[in-house]
Amino acid sequence: MKLYDSIGPNPKLVRMFAAEKGFTFSDTETVDIMAGANRQGPYLEKNPAGGMPAVEVDGAITAETIAICELIEETQPNPPLIGTNAAERAETRMWVRRVEWKIIQPLTDGFRNAEGSQLFESRMRIDNSVAPHFKAVAQDGFEWLDAQLDGRTTIVPGRFTLADVALYAIAEFGQSVGQPLNADLKNVAAWYEATAKHDSAQA
Amino acid sequence: MKLYDSIGPNPKLVRMFAAEKGFTFSDTETVDIMAGANRQGPYLEKNPAGGMPAVEVDGAITAETIAICELIEETQPNPPLIGTNAAERAETRMWVRRVEWKIIQPLTDGFRNAEGSQLFESRMRIDNSVAPHFKAVAQDGFEWLDAQLDGRTTIVPGRFTLADVALYAIAEFGQSVGQPLNADLKNVAAWYEATAKHDSAQA
Repeated sequence: MKLYDSIGPNPKLVRMFAAEKGFTFSDTETVDIMAGANRQGPYLEKNPAGGMPAVEVDGAITAETIAICELIEETQPNPPLIGTNAAERAETRMWVRRVEWKIIQPLTDGFRNAEGSQLFESRMRIDNSVAPHFKAVAQDGFEWLDAQLDGRTTIVPGRFTLADVALYAIAEFGQSVGQPLNADLKNVAAWYEATAKHDSAQA
Repeated sequence: MKLYDSIGPNPKLVRMFAAEKGFTFSDTETVDIMAGANRQGPYLEKNPAGGMPAVEVDGAITAETIAICELIEETQPNPPLIGTNAAERAETRMWVRRVEWKIIQPLTDGFRNAEGSQLFESRMRIDNSVAPHFKAVAQDGFEWLDAQLDGRTTIVPGRFTLADVALYAIAEFGQSVGQPLNADLKNVAAWYEATAKHDSAQA
């Protein structure tokens, strides 16, 4: 499995997931997203949505972070980060989507429409006036999550999963682009600290 | 598997997916979302995110549409609507996420922050001023998809999948809440017409 890699929280998510599983890509090609190499030429032909990262297996491209992580889990099931049976996988997928819709999407779009607008304005519809709404929605999501995390430091109860990896990658990114964690959210802070201790967090 | 059902495009998505597979829920309980029954009491205890629908198996709740559909596919693999092997599943999951991020999320949030704001203002942060941005982003997504669909009437090439079901449910809903399909997008129109012919589209 070849990885098309770049800077940014989405490639970080996939690298962290792979590292946590001890999964090694057979090859890695770095795409220069600051120069827009992902929005033209050979990469755009492979992934017409233009996002990063993507992986390639036997000539078939898989893009979109969570689809890639599902493929890695199917390729190398252990250690499980999604689940070992249908019930566990359903629980993980539910939590992944909760943190994506409530936090990852609005935080990302808050960045793209504000601090990231110069990079993204040639790539998608950008409107600086909507960024404060997105950022506030992401903070609402962290508040909701804080209440859920009472008494635990993993998003899925009792298991470190893809949900932790996905949220960690964007939460770490948020801190570097003006969307820090709210220090009043003690459970989220404890979750972040516990997740950051994984070696994979350096991937 | 018990279904917690309601009006709206998300329960429609799950019912359509189940119908297409010939999967029957053992029990169905209708939740009155207009009265806010999903944001309080026993339902909120089962699904603390409060969204609809959810399913219950042996006491375990799975919420979030795509997680539910994955669970149905694992429970009854045939006919496959995600895939019969890892490569097919990866391709379907990639396309599901493309249509979700580019169309389903912005169309939904466009509705919630405009026509749906009275229903949703007690449930989440609502700002009427951001709705035009969301609606325009959704239309950009349909334009992007139109170019991808050249020569085919299924979102994943050659297979009717969860991606078709997910987008159909929201596209149908959009037509009823002031976000109709753009008639200039001939490939999207042909895809919609082909999908609407499935008996499951009446679910």
